[in-house]
Amino acid sequence: MTSAAVPEPSAPRRRGRPGHDQATVLRTAVDLFNRRGYDATSMGDLAKELGLTKAAIYHHVDGKEQLLSAALNDALDELEAVVEEAIRDEGTNAHERLRSVVRRSVEVLMAHQPSVTLLLRVRGNSEVEVAALARRRRLDDQLAELVSEAAREGSLRADIPPRLVSRLLFGMVNSLVEWYHSEGSYDPATVAGAVTSLAFEGLTDRPAQRP
Amino acid sequence: MTSAAVPEPSAPRRRGRPGHDQATVLRTAVDLFNRRGYDATSMGDLAKELGLTKAAIYHHVDGKEQLLSAALNDALDELEAVVEEAIRDEGTNAHERLRSVVRRSVEVLMAHQPSVTLLLRVRGNSEVEVAALARRRRLDDQLAELVSEAAREGSLRADIPPRLVSRLLFGMVNSLVEWYHSEGSYDPATVAGAVTSLAFEGLTDRPAQRP
Repeated sequence: MTSAAVPEPSAPRRRGRPGHDQATVLRTAVDLFNRRGYDATSMGDLAKELGLTKAAIYHHVDGKEQLLSAALNDALDELEAVVEEAIRDEGTNAHERLRSVVRRSVEVLMAHQPSVTLLLRVRGNSEVEVAALARRRRLDDQLAELVSEAAREGSLRADIPPRLVSRLLFGMVNSLVEWYHSEGSYDPATVAGAVTSLAFEGLTDRPAQRP
Repeated sequence: MTSAAVPEPSAPRRRGRPGHDQATVLRTAVDLFNRRGYDATSMGDLAKELGLTKAAIYHHVDGKEQLLSAALNDALDELEAVVEEAIRDEGTNAHERLRSVVRRSVEVLMAHQPSVTLLLRVRGNSEVEVAALARRRRLDDQLAELVSEAAREGSLRADIPPRLVSRLLFGMVNSLVEWYHSEGSYDPATVAGAVTSLAFEGLTDRPAQRP
């Protein structure tokens, strides 16, 4: 590294002041978007928050929409990977795959909370948002189909419409982004275990099930 | 009514143009707040949406904060009534009372969706919002206490921390405001039944429980 006088053509030159690389700009932007709302946040606000001039920000990124897009892609890429993996996994039944999707979704939400929070608040006010909503809808469809499959194989109760099960299940999962920070004392594994256990076994204590 | 030449001192005179009473103004305001965000909505926007002048709006209401306050009180009054009734009901055990709170909360959310949506988005940016958050926190505490009580009486599983159970349970309930409109085909009784059944019995089909 230190001996390289000329950067490789393919290696992006690190731009901007130390400590203000693209990742820092993105993280700060997402935090601001979540606190104030995307539409209400200007590039000027972001510059102020970072202690930079607006010109310096544009040295790092093309604009506000690029930051939104990067954050939404981060969240969607992770969630899609969880669902794709579960769909491809042919070694287990649909019940186990659904359970795994729920558990891993909780882990993604907790590890990528800021970008998932932003994703869940998107309302379709721009092309970037409309594209993100389309990807969310595809995920919703895949999850509802997995619920249907589990009900058909007889491992999941079939008396609640699959779409409603899917909405409630991931409504519970998604609610994490709203309250997890204010209940900071739980580790991801505890929360993931609690969500799957509540959803699949239910809250009622069953003495008959005890050994 | 028609013979009353002079209004009773205690009866508020109906103000404004026909079709634009206070209830209409409030309903329209809450809808705008939910679509655009409270902070981003001006009284001018509201006047435009109602086809009135700003002066005419102030004939109906004192200002934006009064509208926010009225909507938040509507949601909180209803939710508090549900919880208070369950706490006072000494004829049933804590498990039944918790189940009843969940079912009735779903009904309140569906009947008062716009004002509950607004309540769930409050972040504490003004005195009115801080007061609403304090009332929400009190409800959260009461719900967590009801979960604890049910666990102590042995009717509810005790292996998940009560506060976490309460967050997940009402996270699922509250998620309704985000997706219920896009899945408009379910009636409130179906949704309330699905939520309570998923939460208390769980999704896993149990052949052993069948008759």
